[in-house]
Amino acid sequence: MFNRFQQILDSIRPVDMSLTATVQAHLDDLTKPQGSLGRLEEIALKYAIATGTTSPAIPKKKIFCFAGDHGVAAEGVSAFPAAVTPQMVYNMLGGGAAINVLSRHTGADLEVVDMGVNHDFADHPMLRQLKVAYGSSNMAQGAAMSLDDTLQAIVAGMKLALEAREQGYQLLGTGEMGIANTTPATALYATLLDLPVESITGRGTGIDDKGLLHKIDIIKRSIEVNCANLGTPLETLAALGGYEIAGICGLILGAASVGMPVVVDGFISTSAAVCAIKLSCKVSDYLFFSHLSNEQGHRAVMQKLGARPILNLDLRLGEGTGGALAMQVIDASLKLYHEMATFSSAGVSGKNS
Amino acid sequence: MFNRFQQILDSIRPVDMSLTATVQAHLDDLTKPQGSLGRLEEIALKYAIATGTTSPAIPKKKIFCFAGDHGVAAEGVSAFPAAVTPQMVYNMLGGGAAINVLSRHTGADLEVVDMGVNHDFADHPMLRQLKVAYGSSNMAQGAAMSLDDTLQAIVAGMKLALEAREQGYQLLGTGEMGIANTTPATALYATLLDLPVESITGRGTGIDDKGLLHKIDIIKRSIEVNCANLGTPLETLAALGGYEIAGICGLILGAASVGMPVVVDGFISTSAAVCAIKLSCKVSDYLFFSHLSNEQGHRAVMQKLGARPILNLDLRLGEGTGGALAMQVIDASLKLYHEMATFSSAGVSGKNS
Repeated sequence: MFNRFQQILDSIRPVDMSLTATVQAHLDDLTKPQGSLGRLEEIALKYAIATGTTSPAIPKKKIFCFAGDHGVAAEGVSAFPAAVTPQMVYNMLGGGAAINVLSRHTGADLEVVDMGVNHDFADHPMLRQLKVAYGSSNMAQGAAMSLDDTLQAIVAGMKLALEAREQGYQLLGTGEMGIANTTPATALYATLLDLPVESITGRGTGIDDKGLLHKIDIIKRSIEVNCANLGTPLETLAALGGYEIAGICGLILGAASVGMPVVVDGFISTSAAVCAIKLSCKVSDYLFFSHLSNEQGHRAVMQKLGARPILNLDLRLGEGTGGALAMQVIDASLKLYHEMATFSSAGVSGKNS
Repeated sequence: MFNRFQQILDSIRPVDMSLTATVQAHLDDLTKPQGSLGRLEEIALKYAIATGTTSPAIPKKKIFCFAGDHGVAAEGVSAFPAAVTPQMVYNMLGGGAAINVLSRHTGADLEVVDMGVNHDFADHPMLRQLKVAYGSSNMAQGAAMSLDDTLQAIVAGMKLALEAREQGYQLLGTGEMGIANTTPATALYATLLDLPVESITGRGTGIDDKGLLHKIDIIKRSIEVNCANLGTPLETLAALGGYEIAGICGLILGAASVGMPVVVDGFISTSAAVCAIKLSCKVSDYLFFSHLSNEQGHRAVMQKLGARPILNLDLRLGEGTGGALAMQVIDASLKLYHEMATFSSAGVSGKNS
């Protein structure tokens, strides 16, 4: 398992920045004042460089929604009961969750991945059964996952990306479902990005003031309990993460290893992206951060990463919802790149000299 | 002309806020933590109230791109020559402008409206010929438009909205093309919103530092020259506006008069929206501000209006491009409203009590 992990990790290549001049020259020749399409131009440029082409096609898109349960839910850190994780998986399989609506809206295929839900699901065409365990252990009492189980979840995510590439997908989106998972995500940020727990801990699905203080205590205790096992990003992910987070981390690494960009959803998905970046810094050039989550702490995380999310719609749902919306903006930027007339072809005058 | 204007203005009704409870109750019953879809929920609520229904359909959409020339361009306030206005109209008719790409992307029909371009166009199926004059007069030397011509442009815009409603359109977008038109738009903001010219004057399509100081001087001189004729919003629009701005103002008023929401594009379109709001404050409830323009001053204008734009992508192109992108977000919010499962129907548990 470790060999496969290391092999895919080692195959992540830096992007070819030499394409920049050609892509930028084309953007500047489109019939508009230079730079007037703002971030749409930046997105088209980043996408072209990530995919290694000066003429990137409108991508075939797929969103993977990873589900997992969390032992730390037993500490009462979430406003919703753990039973909601499998219930929401069924809701997704029935087509009634927000991510179903938004993946249809954006024209992306959707697959739900059971990485660690505390429930046995029957087979379903939209469900990928890759369960590593029936939920993580309670990280307030020890490691959330063993190193072996963590690697299994990461490699499973990697393989999903490689398989998607073989099926012709060109842009992936991350999503997740897991009651209590803002707690491990916050612990990962605090540890991997050296951010103070108090300032980045938020209300998740809606805990009250008392619940927030309790959640901060649990996160701090989890970090203390596991402090001897936070030496590497992999150990940290195992100690303080969760199965769906490890799966997303793997998906990102796998996609980067084949030069495929990934749209990262919100607070939870970004914690998996941080793990991936800590495992291989080259990953950043393949990532689009879709939106600024309304979950307290995401802004500080984005600042630490030097990233500016595409959207800011106060979303705090997860599932991949922000990613689905941002995919439409990426599509728009690529259509502008391909379909707009150039100054010379359209007979439009340039700037006054 | 004035009677028709006043008649449509008088027919703008306040929205029915009593629908709020029903719409909000449905939003809260969808399978997600309450409020977790953030601004998408606010947008669905506002849209439902604006259209006066608790079950608004996914709208049939049309973007009107109004074109006009500006006498003040002779003062050298733009980086591009005035000849670009008709050239860009031809580019739109040929399908190669950014707004062509983005209206296709968002599924909106597009019509270009000649309200005051200094050029005679041949007939074209995508072009509506409603020219009032061959461009506005130089507002640095007197009124940009006569009151009669201003009313003619406003009423023409009103009629376009009423006609669109009869054709089954349910959501309109505004756009514009007019070399030098950030200059009148800034003069309108300074006058109607009492904002200091220096702090809200920007670089438009890309003037340099010296050009910016010159532009500020021209705007101040225009306000001074016309100071005896800025008593009412209508006089102000005539003195400091332009034909495409008056047309957009009319479109907004006409749409509001039949309870149809309008997506307002960027810096120029917002100046027309401000004129419309000053003519009838009830208009605000029908408006979606699509994006925060990268043009200096738009942020201060949004703050004055108490509005938070949907997107912030550093766009400064106009044409309706930001509006087209925001329409996709509005569609997304309405699809979520209609297509998501409810807690009861999906068998998903609610919050811990």
